[in-house]
Amino acid sequence: MCELLGMSANVPTDIVFSFSGLMRRGGDTGPHRDGFGIAFYEGRGCRVFLDPMPSAQSEIARLVQRYPLKSCNVISHIRQANRGRVCLENTHPFTRELWGRPWTFAHNGQLRGVKRLPLNFYRPIGTTDSEYAFCYLLDQLRQRYPRRPRRAASVHRLIAQTAAQLHALGVFNFLLCDAHELYAHCSNRLYWLTRRAPFGAARLIDADLRVDFSTVTGHGDIVTVIASQPLTDNETWQAMTPGELRIFRDGLAPVHFQAGRLMRRTDG
Amino acid sequence: MCELLGMSANVPTDIVFSFSGLMRRGGDTGPHRDGFGIAFYEGRGCRVFLDPMPSAQSEIARLVQRYPLKSCNVISHIRQANRGRVCLENTHPFTRELWGRPWTFAHNGQLRGVKRLPLNFYRPIGTTDSEYAFCYLLDQLRQRYPRRPRRAASVHRLIAQTAAQLHALGVFNFLLCDAHELYAHCSNRLYWLTRRAPFGAARLIDADLRVDFSTVTGHGDIVTVIASQPLTDNETWQAMTPGELRIFRDGLAPVHFQAGRLMRRTDG
Repeated sequence: MCELLGMSANVPTDIVFSFSGLMRRGGDTGPHRDGFGIAFYEGRGCRVFLDPMPSAQSEIARLVQRYPLKSCNVISHIRQANRGRVCLENTHPFTRELWGRPWTFAHNGQLRGVKRLPLNFYRPIGTTDSEYAFCYLLDQLRQRYPRRPRRAASVHRLIAQTAAQLHALGVFNFLLCDAHELYAHCSNRLYWLTRRAPFGAARLIDADLRVDFSTVTGHGDIVTVIASQPLTDNETWQAMTPGELRIFRDGLAPVHFQAGRLMRRTDG
Repeated sequence: MCELLGMSANVPTDIVFSFSGLMRRGGDTGPHRDGFGIAFYEGRGCRVFLDPMPSAQSEIARLVQRYPLKSCNVISHIRQANRGRVCLENTHPFTRELWGRPWTFAHNGQLRGVKRLPLNFYRPIGTTDSEYAFCYLLDQLRQRYPRRPRRAASVHRLIAQTAAQLHALGVFNFLLCDAHELYAHCSNRLYWLTRRAPFGAARLIDADLRVDFSTVTGHGDIVTVIASQPLTDNETWQAMTPGELRIFRDGLAPVHFQAGRLMRRTDG
């Protein structure tokens, strides 16, 4: 199984603390030796660092740890390969442009028979079922909406329905981002945690590292972290349920679907 | 004016030497302070490092210099902005998937009125005329060939014709790569150099750095470097002519167009 890590925040925030825990699992405290990747959004732009090397030994992972890029939306993934050989083109997150936005996608799980689904516009570059599922998801959006619909709710609903369709094929924990919103779908394990004032201290499970967020955050900061497993042992992580899709924006989760059905929509 | 750097090789080769010269021009020996980017192909995969910071001060550029990624196809760009503000989404090279391959594009120049051309499939994420031109070029390929044609010559011809069309709008020096072939188009300044046995020593113009390639290469290696200006002062660089498009594969240039017309095609 791979591990996912995401962040949604209302101010540009670095993910060094959480990423430090995750990268230890890449061949050190965990078995995820088959590469890692991380996508940082800055405005409409996105940069993705990929390495098919184990993250615990990756020079690129060390750069990400040392160089605190600030972002409101981040998706990261460390891989333990099940389908598709270990190589750059099979390394998550995957990226495609849709409606003039750079979408990224990282997946934990397996989907049986996903490659029998038809693709129209997007084609996978590598051989993973994950990238194929991502192409299928964007194809559904593009076929229904050749241009981005004015109502975000239309996009949310179609993503939720397609996620539910693909979830029926196997294990489908994923993080998806379009520069504005971060979608987190739970198949069997995904947790999230929102940090906001009053901030306290947090202690990593995988590394001997603590941080007191009250010293590094502003009063109005809202930062949500999403992870396959809790990264800290002194905070309360929310376990997501199978079939749950949460849509995060500016650190909040205003929209929530269950098995493709809208459960809750607030203004944030 | 921006600066371009490309490499085509028949064995995975690092570009540290040439890149060391280029990055000095990014705010140090040259005025190109508005970001840099570099795309490395490994098999079908591609990783792109982008930084809107001046390359001479970029942590990411230092990583690329320190960490010798080996590749058969590389495209790099340092930017001196003329159209489009300095931000991540306006940083070259740009990337899009076509026919299951990751295409990358970097441009030096300006194209008047390019944004009046119609786009169908691909949409720019940023605001540069360069990314718009790239989207237009891939749109032409995709509209004519929804699937990759069996004959590479069909792709070459359409790219050459579209490059000539866009060249009429202004200055259009570009590097384009699809993981297999590297296209170099000259509008007013582009040079190339092929290194092969017997290898000798080379000395950078922009940095106090020499390398004796005979100590770091195999006998059969063929490595072509393409740059906006010669990077070394003791080798003979070939100046390209306005309207010249060369298609490099495995370090060789088997195909050559002039103003959209095929001049030469060999088997390599």
